[in-house]
Amino acid sequence: MIDPLEARTISVQPLTQEAFVPFGDVIELCKAPDFLINQELCGRHHDLAQLDFSPQMGNGRAGISLFDAVPRRLPYQLEMMERHPLGSQAFLPLHEAPFLIITAKDNDGYPARPQAFVSAPGQGINFHRNVWHGVLTPLQSDQHRCGLFAVIDRIGEGNNLQEVWFQEPYLIIQ
Amino acid sequence: MIDPLEARTISVQPLTQEAFVPFGDVIELCKAPDFLINQELCGRHHDLAQLDFSPQMGNGRAGISLFDAVPRRLPYQLEMMERHPLGSQAFLPLHEAPFLIITAKDNDGYPARPQAFVSAPGQGINFHRNVWHGVLTPLQSDQHRCGLFAVIDRIGEGNNLQEVWFQEPYLIIQ
Repeated sequence: MIDPLEARTISVQPLTQEAFVPFGDVIELCKAPDFLINQELCGRHHDLAQLDFSPQMGNGRAGISLFDAVPRRLPYQLEMMERHPLGSQAFLPLHEAPFLIITAKDNDGYPARPQAFVSAPGQGINFHRNVWHGVLTPLQSDQHRCGLFAVIDRIGEGNNLQEVWFQEPYLIIQ
Repeated sequence: MIDPLEARTISVQPLTQEAFVPFGDVIELCKAPDFLINQELCGRHHDLAQLDFSPQMGNGRAGISLFDAVPRRLPYQLEMMERHPLGSQAFLPLHEAPFLIITAKDNDGYPARPQAFVSAPGQGINFHRNVWHGVLTPLQSDQHRCGLFAVIDRIGEGNNLQEVWFQEPYLIIQ
């Protein structure tokens, strides 16, 4: 028999391309750049995210916004998750502090048991369209701007937000 | 009479929205967020860049790439500039180190006298389509990844690069 408390506890794992495949893209340097540009002084790691902004509905298009979020600490209580039926959403940290990424597969219109990842410096992520995820959760650090992220997501009309609140929260732990 | 050396010397200025208007967008926090989201724990500063990927030509679309460039130091010798006739190009530093931005108005198909800006931590930029600019020039700092940037630019067919090499370089100074 599983202790119900343990069943609601989720340990973080390192963010890797392989583990993140069901949810989206890890935006990070590849082993080697796709192209060397600018007199070989710059490596271009090319086209690292599957962007999808449902352009055929409500004039969906790509936009760049900034999110400025309150940093959190582990253990973190996960009370809700959300998804965006009309578009992908990428988060790019404008700093070198790790952040917490919570995501889940879909189980008949409801998030399955969540998974939690902690990024390494230099990693961003892109959630594919309609993938369940937690809200942006920077982790407290000594970097002044550790809550600041560029977000590449859909600008357009239509209802692009679905939220689920859990009857009992999950606890995300180190 | 202007000393020819002085005529080829350009002093950097701080990067501000106002000064950058002729060239593109400064992507930075506004005085107040456009929306508070996530139970008011996150400010959304919304849709901060004029993206333009000429979708009607060569299936142009937005992409996210990473550029990993060799950091430079001032004074910096500017030998060439480039522009992208088919798309805007945004640079988002994945760190808090300043970077150097060189740009110019157009003068009959050739860059006018360049201007040089140094960013503050938390600032990114978006060059509008067909605006002359220097290649990505991170500035040397104690941040390990100060050469790493996310780039939001056009993925698609067609010739999207025009370069001009100066007969005599400019010198960008502090």
